Amino acid sequence: MDQLLFWLVPAASVLALCFAGYFHREMMKESEGTPQMIRIAAAVRKGAMSYLKQQYKIVGWVFFGLVILFSIMAYGFGVQNPWVPVAFLTGGFFSGLSGFLGMKTATYASARTANAARTSLNAGLRVAFRSGAVMGLVVVGLGLLDISFWYLLLNAVIPEDVLTPTHKLCIITTTMLTFGMGASTQALFARVGGGIYTKAADVGADLVGKVEAGIPEDDPRNPATIADNVGDNVGDVAGMGADLYESYCGSILATAALGAAAFIHSGDTLMQFKAVIAPMLIAAVGILLSIIGIFSVRTKENAKMKDLLNSLALGTNLSSVLIVVAAFFILWLLKLDNWAWIACSVVVGLVVGIVIGRSTEYYTSQSYRPTQKLSESGKTGPATVIISGIGLGMLSTAIPVVAVVAGIIASYLFASGFDFSNVGLGLYGIGIAAVGMLSTLGITLATDAYGPIADNAGGNAEMSGLGEAVRKRTDALDSLGNTTAATGKGFAIGSAALTGLALLASYIEEIRIGLTRLGTTEIHAGGQTIPVQDATFFDFMHHYDVTLMNPKVLSGMFIGSMMAFLFCGLTMNAVGRAASHMVDEVRRQFREIKGILTGEAEPDYERCVAISTKGAQREMVIPSLIAIVAPILTGLVFGVPGVLGLLIGGLSSGFVLAIFMANAGGAWDNAKKYVEEGNFGGKGGETHKATVVGDTVGDPFKDTSGPSLNILIKLMSMVAIVMAGLTVAWSLF
Amino acid sequence: MDQLLFWLVPAASVLALCFAGYFHREMMKESEGTPQMIRIAAAVRKGAMSYLKQQYKIVGWVFFGLVILFSIMAYGFGVQNPWVPVAFLTGGFFSGLSGFLGMKTATYASARTANAARTSLNAGLRVAFRSGAVMGLVVVGLGLLDISFWYLLLNAVIPEDVLTPTHKLCIITTTMLTFGMGASTQALFARVGGGIYTKAADVGADLVGKVEAGIPEDDPRNPATIADNVGDNVGDVAGMGADLYESYCGSILATAALGAAAFIHSGDTLMQFKAVIAPMLIAAVGILLSIIGIFSVRTKENAKMKDLLNSLALGTNLSSVLIVVAAFFILWLLKLDNWAWIACSVVVGLVVGIVIGRSTEYYTSQSYRPTQKLSESGKTGPATVIISGIGLGMLSTAIPVVAVVAGIIASYLFASGFDFSNVGLGLYGIGIAAVGMLSTLGITLATDAYGPIADNAGGNAEMSGLGEAVRKRTDALDSLGNTTAATGKGFAIGSAALTGLALLASYIEEIRIGLTRLGTTEIHAGGQTIPVQDATFFDFMHHYDVTLMNPKVLSGMFIGSMMAFLFCGLTMNAVGRAASHMVDEVRRQFREIKGILTGEAEPDYERCVAISTKGAQREMVIPSLIAIVAPILTGLVFGVPGVLGLLIGGLSSGFVLAIFMANAGGAWDNAKKYVEEGNFGGKGGETHKATVVGDTVGDPFKDTSGPSLNILIKLMSMVAIVMAGLTVAWSLF
Repeated sequence: MDQLLFWLVPAASVLALCFAGYFHREMMKESEGTPQMIRIAAAVRKGAMSYLKQQYKIVGWVFFGLVILFSIMAYGFGVQNPWVPVAFLTGGFFSGLSGFLGMKTATYASARTANAARTSLNAGLRVAFRSGAVMGLVVVGLGLLDISFWYLLLNAVIPEDVLTPTHKLCIITTTMLTFGMGASTQALFARVGGGIYTKAADVGADLVGKVEAGIPEDDPRNPATIADNVGDNVGDVAGMGADLYESYCGSILATAALGAAAFIHSGDTLMQFKAVIAPMLIAAVGILLSIIGIFSVRTKENAKMKDLLNSLALGTNLSSVLIVVAAFFILWLLKLDNWAWIACSVVVGLVVGIVIGRSTEYYTSQSYRPTQKLSESGKTGPATVIISGIGLGMLSTAIPVVAVVAGIIASYLFASGFDFSNVGLGLYGIGIAAVGMLSTLGITLATDAYGPIADNAGGNAEMSGLGEAVRKRTDALDSLGNTTAATGKGFAIGSAALTGLALLASYIEEIRIGLTRLGTTEIHAGGQTIPVQDATFFDFMHHYDVTLMNPKVLSGMFIGSMMAFLFCGLTMNAVGRAASHMVDEVRRQFREIKGILTGEAEPDYERCVAISTKGAQREMVIPSLIAIVAPILTGLVFGVPGVLGLLIGGLSSGFVLAIFMANAGGAWDNAKKYVEEGNFGGKGGETHKATVVGDTVGDPFKDTSGPSLNILIKLMSMVAIVMAGLTVAWSLF
Repeated sequence: MDQLLFWLVPAASVLALCFAGYFHREMMKESEGTPQMIRIAAAVRKGAMSYLKQQYKIVGWVFFGLVILFSIMAYGFGVQNPWVPVAFLTGGFFSGLSGFLGMKTATYASARTANAARTSLNAGLRVAFRSGAVMGLVVVGLGLLDISFWYLLLNAVIPEDVLTPTHKLCIITTTMLTFGMGASTQALFARVGGGIYTKAADVGADLVGKVEAGIPEDDPRNPATIADNVGDNVGDVAGMGADLYESYCGSILATAALGAAAFIHSGDTLMQFKAVIAPMLIAAVGILLSIIGIFSVRTKENAKMKDLLNSLALGTNLSSVLIVVAAFFILWLLKLDNWAWIACSVVVGLVVGIVIGRSTEYYTSQSYRPTQKLSESGKTGPATVIISGIGLGMLSTAIPVVAVVAGIIASYLFASGFDFSNVGLGLYGIGIAAVGMLSTLGITLATDAYGPIADNAGGNAEMSGLGEAVRKRTDALDSLGNTTAATGKGFAIGSAALTGLALLASYIEEIRIGLTRLGTTEIHAGGQTIPVQDATFFDFMHHYDVTLMNPKVLSGMFIGSMMAFLFCGLTMNAVGRAASHMVDEVRRQFREIKGILTGEAEPDYERCVAISTKGAQREMVIPSLIAIVAPILTGLVFGVPGVLGLLIGGLSSGFVLAIFMANAGGAWDNAKKYVEEGNFGGKGGETHKATVVGDTVGDPFKDTSGPSLNILIKLMSMVAIVMAGLTVAWSLF
C-alpha cells in the first residue's frame, strides 16, 4: 500500500509536464500579431537565447571543474560520496532545462499576450498567466522527476543489508541531497548573472532615456529597450525559476533526509520509509492542486482590474486551502506516526508564507501608508527618498523574522510532540513546514512568471505602436504582475530561509556519512563514547563543541554575516559598472546616430544586448566563486564548528538583509508609481524626479542583490554538505 | 607587592582628572575673540546645554523606573544582585558627568580655537586638541575612578569566607560589571538622541540652505546653522564620549570577571587576584602614556597641514608603541601565569584596532581609489552615487571582519596556551585584547573630540566674518578632524565588538550567580551532575543546550539580526522625520522673515534649536525602549539559549551593519569633498549635485544609525547580564 503511494510522485511529475506541454501548445496556437510585433518578439527572443547560451557555456566550465574535483575526492581520496559527481550533473541539467523551457515559453508568449490584449483584458491575462504556468509546472515536474529517478535508482542498487536496515534510507536520502548542489550552482549563475543583466539594462535605459532624453519607458527610440526586455526574461523568468527549483528540490530532499535520520534508531523501517516519502507525497498532491488552481483562474469577458486580481487570488487561495485538507488526508492515509501534528507543520509553513507575502505587500504597495509616506518624502528631494526608503526597508524586516521564528518553533514543537529534546523529529517538522510553503509552487510560480511576460507584452505594445487602449490594458496586466512579483519575492526568501535550516540539519547527517567513510566508528560526547551510527544531533554538537562559546563557531558566524554583505556589495557594484557601460553606449548612439530621437533612424539594439550580456558574464564570476569557496575555506580552517557558524551567520544575516533589500526596492518602485498616478505633483514634477532616483537605486536592491542572497543562503549549505567529507578529514584548528 | 600595584589604578585615574583640569584651565585662559564670536559661542553653548538638560531629564525618568524595577527584583523577589540598583546609578552618573564635562569644554573651546587660528594654524590646533584631551582624560579618569571605588568597597564589605576563597573575587567582579548597565543606558540616549539631533539639524540645514537657497555651509543667514553647530557637540562630543566610556569600563570589567572565573577551580587566590587587576593595570598605564602622547602633539610655528597630521599621528603612535612595551613590563612585574602570551593578546587588540582604522581610511578617504571612483559615479547622477556607495560600504566590511576574526582566534589561543579547550583563559584573552585596543583611549578620544571642536571653530569663524585666511586655517583643522573621526569610528565599532564578546562570556558567570541565588546547586551536562559552583563554560553550554541545532538558539539569532536592522531603520526614520520638520521651519523663516537672505534681518536660530531638541527627545524613546526590552522578552520566552542566540546574532549582524553604514557614510562625505576640490567639474556642477545627495544620505548612516549600533551591541549584553537572574528563574519554553 505504502509502496504504491510512492508512485504518486513520478505520476504527478509526469502530469505536471503534460499540462505544461498542453499550456505551451495552447499558447503557441495564438496569433503573434502584426509583423512589427513578430519582429520585436523575435529580437527579444534572440537576445535572451543568446544570453542563455553564453551563460550555459560558463556554467558548463564551472560544472566541468567541479565534477573533476568531486571525482578526485570520491574516487581518488575516498572523502566523497561516489554518487555525487553524477548526481551533481543531473541536478544542474534539470535546473538549467527548466530555466530554458520557461524562458523560451515566456519569449513566445509576450507578443501573443499583447495581441490578445487587443481583444480584451481577459484574453491577455489568460495567455500571459497560462504561459507563466508552463514555467511553474515545468519546475515542479522536472524537480519531482529527478527526485523519483534517483530514489528508484538508489533503492535498486544499494543493498538492503548495508549496516542496519534503517541505514539504507539514510544513505539514499543523503546521497540524493547532493544533487541539490548541481541545482544550486546552476541557480547561482542564473540569479546573479540574470540579475546583473536585467538591471544593467534597466538602469542604463532609465538613466539616459527617461532622465536625460525625457522619453518614456519602452520607447523604441531608446537603444537599450530591447536589452531591458531581454533582461526581464533572463532575470525574472529564468533566474527566479532556477532559484525556486532549487528551494523546491532542496526542501523535499532535506526533509526526506531528516525523516530517514529521525528513525535511524527505532529500527522501524516502515515508519522511516513513510517519513521519507511524506514530503514527496505532499509535493505530488500539491501539483494536482496547482493544476486545479491554474484552471480556476478565469474571469468573464470585459472583466475589470479588480476582477482580475480576485481571480488570480482565487487560484492561489484555492490551492492553499485544498493543500491543507489534502495534507491531513495524505498523512492519515500514510498512517505516519503523529500524522495530525505533522500536517499542522505543513499548515505552519503555508501560514508563514502568507504572512511574509502580506507583510511585503503592506510595506511595498502604494495602497498602504508606508509607501505613500515614502512618496511624500520626495517633496524634499532625492536624499530624503533614499533615507526614508532605507528606513522603511529595515523596519519591514521585523514581521517576516517574527513569522519565521514563530514558524520554526511551532513546526518543531508540533512534529516533536512538544518535546524540545526530540531534535530529530523537531527538525523534520521544520523541513515539513518548508515543503508545505512550497507545495503549491506550481501555481505561485505561475503568478510570478506571469509578471515579466505581461511586462514584455507592454514593451511590445509600446514599440509596435498598438495605441493607447491596448497599452492601457497591458499596463493593467503589468501592474497586476508587480503585486504578484512582490509577494513572490517574499515567498522565495521565506522558503530559502526554511530550506536553509533544513539543509543545515542535513549537514550533520553528511558528517556522519563522512566519518563512516573515513573509518571513524566512535565520537566522544559528554565524557561518553558513542558509535557514530547511533549518535544523535545532540551528540555531534557536543563532540565538535558547536556551542556559542567556541571561538571557531563565533568566527564562522562573523564571516557568515560578512559574506551576506560582501556578496550584496559585489553584485551592487557589478550592476553599477555594467549600467555605466550601458549609459555610455546609449549616449554614444544618441550622439552619433542622427535622427534616433526624431524616430527617423533606428538605434542599434543588438549592441546594447551584447553589452549587457558581456557585462553580466564578466561580473557574475567573482561573487559566484566567493559563494562556493567560502564554505570550503572555512571548513578547512575552522572545521565543522566553523562551517556551522558560517552557515547560521549567513542564514540569519542574509535572510534579514534580503528582506530589507527586496522591500526597500519594491517600495521605491511603487512610490514612484504613486507619484505618477497624480499625487504630490504627478509625473514630471520635482517629487517625481526624486522618486525616480529611488526607483533606480531600488532596481539592483530588489532584482539583483536581494534575490541573489536566497541563493547564497542555500548554496553555502549545499557546498558545505557536499564538502562535508573533506571537512571531517582535515581542518587546520 | 601585588596589593600595592593595585593602587596604581586609582592613582592613574586621579592623575587623568588633574591633567584634564589643567588642560581645561589653560584653554579658558585663551581669549574668546570678538564680541560677535563670543555671542555665537554663547548661543551654541546655550543650545547644547539646554539640550543636555532635556536629555538628562528623560534619562532621569528612565533611570528612576529601572532602579525601581531592579529594587523589586533584588529586594522583593531575590532574583537580582542586591548591589545592582546602586551600581547602576553610579555608572549612569559618571557616564553622564563625563559627557557633560567634555561637552562643556568643547563649547568653550570653539571660539577660542577660531581666535587662536587668527594667529597661526599651530595655535589653533593646540587649543582644539588640548580641549579634546579634556574629554579623553575625563572619560578614562572617571571610568577608572568608578572601577576603583567599587572594587575597594565590595572588597571591604563582602566576607572572605563566602563559599570558597576564589568565589569572593567572582562575586565582586560580576557585581561591578552591572554598573556598566548604567553607563550603557546613559550612552544609549546620548548616542541615539545626540545622533538624531545632529543629523536632523545638519540634513535640514543642507537641504534648504545649500541645495535650495544656494548659500554656503555655516552661513549666518541659515536659521539652522546654530542648531547644526549644537548638534556637533551633543552628537559627536557627548555621544561619542558616553559610547566609549561604556566600552572602556565594559571591557575592563568584563575581562576582570573572566579573569576571576578562569581561576575559580584552581583555588589559587593570588593568581586570581592578578588576573583581575591585570586589565585595570594595563588601563592605568595607558593613561600615563596617553598623557605623554598628548604632550608630544606640538609642531613648530607656521606648520603646514602635513606637519599637523604627522604630529597628531606621532602622538597616537607613540602611545601605542609605549603601551606594548609597558604591557609586557607590567604583566612581568605582576608575574601573572603565562604573562608573555597574555601581553601578546594586548598587542593583538592594538593591531586589530589599527587594521580597522586603516581599512576605514582606505575605504573612506578621497586619497584612495574607492572614494575617487565613488565621486566619478556622480557623473551619471545621484542614483549611481547611492548604488556605488552602498556597494562600497558593503565591500568594506570584509577586512574589519577578517581582522576581528583573526584577533579573536589569536588572542584566545595566546591566552589559553594554544589549547582550544581552555575556554576560561581563552575568553579572558579576548577580553584582554579589547582592553589593549582601548588602553590608550585617553589620546585616541582626544583626537576624536578634537574634530567637532575644529568644526565648530570653522562655523564660528564663518559666522563672525573672520575673513578668508582664518577660515582657510579652520577648514584645514576641520579636514584633519574628519580623518581622525573616521578612524575613531572604526575604533569605536571594533572595541564594541570585542567588548560585546567579553560581555557575552560574563553573561554565563551571571547565570551561575543567578542559579546560586535561586538555591539551585547542581546542573546536568553530558549525563553528569555538576555542582553549579564548579561548572565550566562548557558545562553551562551543555546544560542549557546552547548548540546551533537548538531552535531556541536559532530563533534568538534571527531576532538578533533583525534587531540590528530594526534599530537602524527606526533611527534612520527618526532623522528623516526630524529633518523634515527642520526643513519646514527653515523654509518658513525664509518666506516669512523678510531680508534674511540679504543679511538685513537675523533668522530665529533658537526656534531651530528647539525643533531639533524636541525632535531628538521624541524620536529617541522608541528605539531605546526596544533595545532594552528585546533581551528581557527573549529571555522570558526562550530562556538562556534564546538570549545567547540574540546576543550573538545581534553582535555579528550589528558589527557588520555598523561598519557598512559608517564607511558608506564616510565615503559619500569625502566623495563630495573630492568633487569640491575641483574634480569632475568641481563645485556647483552636476556631479557635485549628485554627490551632495550621497553626502546627505550618508549623514544619518555615519553619525546616527551606524554609531548607535555600537550601543545596541553592548547594551543588549548588559541588559541580559543584569536580567540573568530573572531569565534563569522563569522562561516560557
